[in-house]
Amino acid sequence: MNEKLTIETCLTPALLPLYHIENSIAVIIDIFRATSSICYGIENGAEAIIPVAQVEECAAYRQKGFDYLLAAERNGEVVAGFDFGNSPFSYTSEKVAGKTIVLTTTNGTHALHLSRGAKKVVIGSFLNLSALCNWLQDQQENILLVCAGWKNNFNLEDTLFAGAVIDQLKTSDYQLDDPGIAANDLFQLGKNDLNAYLQKTAHSERLKKLGIEEDIRFCLQVDLTTAIPVLRGEKLVKLEG
Amino acid sequence: MNEKLTIETCLTPALLPLYHIENSIAVIIDIFRATSSICYGIENGAEAIIPVAQVEECAAYRQKGFDYLLAAERNGEVVAGFDFGNSPFSYTSEKVAGKTIVLTTTNGTHALHLSRGAKKVVIGSFLNLSALCNWLQDQQENILLVCAGWKNNFNLEDTLFAGAVIDQLKTSDYQLDDPGIAANDLFQLGKNDLNAYLQKTAHSERLKKLGIEEDIRFCLQVDLTTAIPVLRGEKLVKLEG
Repeated sequence: MNEKLTIETCLTPALLPLYHIENSIAVIIDIFRATSSICYGIENGAEAIIPVAQVEECAAYRQKGFDYLLAAERNGEVVAGFDFGNSPFSYTSEKVAGKTIVLTTTNGTHALHLSRGAKKVVIGSFLNLSALCNWLQDQQENILLVCAGWKNNFNLEDTLFAGAVIDQLKTSDYQLDDPGIAANDLFQLGKNDLNAYLQKTAHSERLKKLGIEEDIRFCLQVDLTTAIPVLRGEKLVKLEG
Repeated sequence: MNEKLTIETCLTPALLPLYHIENSIAVIIDIFRATSSICYGIENGAEAIIPVAQVEECAAYRQKGFDYLLAAERNGEVVAGFDFGNSPFSYTSEKVAGKTIVLTTTNGTHALHLSRGAKKVVIGSFLNLSALCNWLQDQQENILLVCAGWKNNFNLEDTLFAGAVIDQLKTSDYQLDDPGIAANDLFQLGKNDLNAYLQKTAHSERLKKLGIEEDIRFCLQVDLTTAIPVLRGEKLVKLEG
C-alpha cells in the first residue's frame, strides 16, 4: 500500500513534543516579523542570518569580535549600540548584501531550536510562499509546519500562513491533520484581504501600539521573493537549487 | 477604567500552563463523547459522574465495594465486566437516574484534572449550549474554554464548540484572544451543518472505524438538555440554579 505523505501543522512550539519531527521537513513560521525579515534579508544577498533569543546573546557576537550586523529591538525601538531592529525594511540589499546578521527574535528562535531534529529546517513567510511550496512539492517528503506563535501559544497570522501553504499543496496527495484543516479554512476566510482579516487579532493591537503597521503590510505581501532560507548549523543561508 | 471580562480559549490541555486559570470559570469540552455523555447523564438524573483516566481506575470502584455503574470502552467495545461504554445512548433515565457513574475518558479527564484550580469547573457540549451560555453570562466572570482535544493536541470538534460559546456570548462585552477568534470563525463555517463540516476531520475517520456514527450525530444536537454539570470534589453533579 502506498502511504500518503503528510502535512502536519504544529500550532505552537509547546506542542512540538507531540510530533515525530525527524520524519519531516520543518517549515518555521513567524510572520510578524522574524521569518518575513529573514526571507527578505536572504533574498537581498545576506550571506547568513543567525537567530538568537536574547539581546544579550546578540551583543555577545560583537564582543567576540565578529564583524556581524546586529539586530535587536525592545518595545519597537532599536536597542542602543545595535545596527538595526526587526523591521523587514532594514534588510535591504544596501544594508545586508554579503553580510552576516545576528537577529534577536524570541518566538522564532524558540521554534527554530526545537525543530533542529527535522530532516531539513526551512523558513517560510508570505514573501516566499510560492517558491517555498514549489520546492516542498518537489521534495516528496512529509512536511511539518511549525507556527512560532506568541509566547508558546496560538496566533492567527502564523496559522493563516500554514493554511496558505496547505492551500497551494492540497491538490497533491497529502494527508492533513485537524490543525491543518482548520488553518486552511481560516486562510480561505482571510485570503482576499489578509491585512483586513488580521486587524481583529490580539497581536495586531499589540503591533499597532509598537507603530509598525507598515511592517505588517510589508510582511503580508505574497511572492515578493524566491529565496528559501535553510538552516545549516547555527546559520540560516540561501538554499541552493 | 472598567476592565473587560475575557473569554480565553485553550486549544489543548498541553497549553493550560500558559493561563491563569484561577481567575476564570473553566468550561471543559470533549465533544466526542465524554462531555456530551456527561451532560446527557446529569440531565437524566444521574446523581453524580466521576471521570477517571484509566479502565483500571474505573474497575477499582467496584473492588472498593461501591455500588456504582462503571463505564469503560476499548476500541469501541464495552470492556468485559463493565456496565456500559461511552455512548451517550447509555445515559438514559432508565439506566442512570439516581445512580453514580464512573466514566473512563482519557482526554476529558486529563483536561478536567488540570483545570481544578479554576473558580468553578463546568461541563459543556452542544447538548447544553444555550443553558451553559446563559449561565456564563449571568456570572460576570472571566471564562476559560478548555478543549480536551486529542492526545494533548488540537481537534476540530472541541474548537468548534468553543466557537459556538463565543458566538452566543460575543454580543456582550468580552475580550477575545486569537484562539477564540479562530474558533468563532471556524464555527461560522460549520454551524449550518456541524455533522457535514466535521466529516473531514481526522477524528471523524477514527470514530467511523469504531462504528459510532450515531453517537456523533447525537453529540452534535444543539440544546437537547439544560443541566449544567459542575465539579464538586471528585464528582460532577448538577449545578443548582
